[in-house]
Amino acid sequence: MRADAATLLEYGTDALKRGHPADLVVIPGSAAEISAIARLCHDMRVPLVVRGAGTGYSGGAVPTEGGIVLSVERLNRILEIDQGNLLAVVQPAVITGVLQAAVEAQGLFYPPDPQSLKESSIGGNVAECAGGPRAFKYGVTKRYVLGLEAVLPTGEIIRTGGRTVKNVVGYDLTQLLVGSEGTLAIITEITLRLVPKPPAVATLRACFADVRAAARAVGALVGRRVVPSTIELMDRDSLDTVAAYVGERLAPAGTGALLLIEVDGVPAAVEAEADAVAAACRDVGALEVLRARSEQEREALWRVRRETSYALRTIAPLKLNNDVVVPHGRVPELIDLVERLRAEYHLRIPSFGHAGDGNIHVNVMVDPADAEAMARATKAVGALMEGVVALQGSISGEHGIGFAKKAYIGLELSEDVIALMKRVKAAFDPHGILNPGKIFP
Amino acid sequence: MRADAATLLEYGTDALKRGHPADLVVIPGSAAEISAIARLCHDMRVPLVVRGAGTGYSGGAVPTEGGIVLSVERLNRILEIDQGNLLAVVQPAVITGVLQAAVEAQGLFYPPDPQSLKESSIGGNVAECAGGPRAFKYGVTKRYVLGLEAVLPTGEIIRTGGRTVKNVVGYDLTQLLVGSEGTLAIITEITLRLVPKPPAVATLRACFADVRAAARAVGALVGRRVVPSTIELMDRDSLDTVAAYVGERLAPAGTGALLLIEVDGVPAAVEAEADAVAAACRDVGALEVLRARSEQEREALWRVRRETSYALRTIAPLKLNNDVVVPHGRVPELIDLVERLRAEYHLRIPSFGHAGDGNIHVNVMVDPADAEAMARATKAVGALMEGVVALQGSISGEHGIGFAKKAYIGLELSEDVIALMKRVKAAFDPHGILNPGKIFP
Repeated sequence: MRADAATLLEYGTDALKRGHPADLVVIPGSAAEISAIARLCHDMRVPLVVRGAGTGYSGGAVPTEGGIVLSVERLNRILEIDQGNLLAVVQPAVITGVLQAAVEAQGLFYPPDPQSLKESSIGGNVAECAGGPRAFKYGVTKRYVLGLEAVLPTGEIIRTGGRTVKNVVGYDLTQLLVGSEGTLAIITEITLRLVPKPPAVATLRACFADVRAAARAVGALVGRRVVPSTIELMDRDSLDTVAAYVGERLAPAGTGALLLIEVDGVPAAVEAEADAVAAACRDVGALEVLRARSEQEREALWRVRRETSYALRTIAPLKLNNDVVVPHGRVPELIDLVERLRAEYHLRIPSFGHAGDGNIHVNVMVDPADAEAMARATKAVGALMEGVVALQGSISGEHGIGFAKKAYIGLELSEDVIALMKRVKAAFDPHGILNPGKIFP
Repeated sequence: MRADAATLLEYGTDALKRGHPADLVVIPGSAAEISAIARLCHDMRVPLVVRGAGTGYSGGAVPTEGGIVLSVERLNRILEIDQGNLLAVVQPAVITGVLQAAVEAQGLFYPPDPQSLKESSIGGNVAECAGGPRAFKYGVTKRYVLGLEAVLPTGEIIRTGGRTVKNVVGYDLTQLLVGSEGTLAIITEITLRLVPKPPAVATLRACFADVRAAARAVGALVGRRVVPSTIELMDRDSLDTVAAYVGERLAPAGTGALLLIEVDGVPAAVEAEADAVAAACRDVGALEVLRARSEQEREALWRVRRETSYALRTIAPLKLNNDVVVPHGRVPELIDLVERLRAEYHLRIPSFGHAGDGNIHVNVMVDPADAEAMARATKAVGALMEGVVALQGSISGEHGIGFAKKAYIGLELSEDVIALMKRVKAAFDPHGILNPGKIFP
């Protein structure tokens, strides 16, 4: 238990950088201790906010109404890796990348790969239903969660799901808890489905004159029945940002959009699919297609993407990172919309992301000290959200709503749906103590 | 609207064959009409039971407390197949096999393949979260449901999810409705994710002396990092039943267990994986491994499995079809348990199913006119359920609970979990009018 001012603010702040101090920080060591804390908070009507690694982008771990921050950091063990049954049992504070390395050492694979995987924890990934580049082939976190142990805000310790892929006994509370942003229960143990590690992978980089051509390549891949594990798109503004940052262009002259594509599987399939990827990209007018022939070449092709986050920081101090998603065929319309927002609001908006899923991170860059610029940025984000919903998309594909985006959920969800979700919330948390002020306006 | 006695009983009976007549059958043509019916039932406290194709094995569509049966049979259109965005929008009464044929004609693929796919409808598949042989590679129905339109028991027409694979806006009501057995809402439209149709498939049949050897083969495949789309297991009792029915043994002498294995993907991968499958099976002592080289040979290998349902009918009039599931490494223990039940209760219990998932259909065969045999069969089913839970499995992997298995859910779910599920039910259906008497004891 800690209550010094620095700790209270540190534990009240996440990657959104809009923190609020906790009144108290508790760091329990077991589900039983968490149960006792929850019961007390329930009885006393004290807000209780669960914190994982604090890498969320939507403020989900921020105690906006004060109260107790419960950090699960001590629940950091991999309890079991069951090679025969293709599953792992882990505590929530296990770092995602650590789990991946542990299972890969046994020939297994945990596909979800949020960019933050070296810092973010499985518990947070589950609470937010994290995605990542490989989701096009492998799906997001929810596809890998078989079962949970969780503490209800009223103190009961429950188990949902189990150790089997098929399970239709009662309501799927497991899937309901995944992505519930710490508002329904406190996750204390996670049973994850694993898959055999693909024996081979190929990495290709295709450069295009513009985003429209790059988007045509995605359609061409589907037409050739190829399912890459990863199709990452970078737009012109992102490429320009990286070029300015590293002091050289990392793609040939004339490149206005770039795709990083990976295929994985058995070696024979990877060869065939890599050829199909290259052919599909050339068919739709790629300026250049390169395939990595070594781990070193693979790193070189990915470099432009990996430098992006660092490069963005040189444009403006604040990144409003919008993880919007549209049906992938409508990515060109989304990119057109971003272009209009750039012109109308006079902002840099580098955009990149997971083109196969239609999940593009639209980064509105702004100096928070400049009130006038902030007002323009806020308007641009609002217009983006409206535009995305008009394109049959969703305002958040990976980061969740937290408190950062709750003003926008009425664009996507009807009043009846929001009312229903609030009734579901009350079924778990009758006094509304768990992560109050999140998701709902 | 129909109310003659024959119709009331016909619409009150499903594949479980333990029907109860409805008081009234309504066959609405739109979500708006369904909304009006729901609102009336809610106001008048009249039970309302939704019926799809009536192929369920757990009595989920039976109006056990009377009231209105609402058949969605008129909502039978495929509204959209969007090749570019890999999705389909369908009404609930579309027959699963019809949808599969329609999307395959466009080079797309809807993987879930319950055995009933020529009769069962997508709406019922979603309500029960249907599985099938291909779930080992492709997963069950819930992995393919992106969005729903549904009518709440209180009459509101809601939309959940959408047209994107990534969507983390609010609670995942879509996944909560999948598998909720018609107790939370009436599904009126379904948006399904599709994948590119695998260009090639290979079918192999491997014969083993016993189930333990066959189960070792499943482990050996995982060890070779091969993920077949299908691994179907048949046990000795099933093989004997089919042999007696068709008048010849469809497998070589000495076969005590048989696996039907399919791999699919790009042709080069299928070749490599088919070779790996054959090698893995031989490694663990297969008596024979055959690979189909034509569609005709493929049909011949599958014949033994396809004849099973017909063959079972010749043993006894009633099949208590238990779709139990265990972690696949524990399938041998499950088969041992079934052997003990056969001996202890003097029953024929042919067992077969989806070995990759650990989902084995344990068919307790009995003559319902023989009260003494029925009592033994009931005891055997109870012992099976207890044994499955002890093996870290689940009492239902595909069929749901309905009213047929609700006496057993306390074996798998704690009182706290059942109480929570009932609170979730009340959040959707405060008067409990929708499919009353199901799932919960």
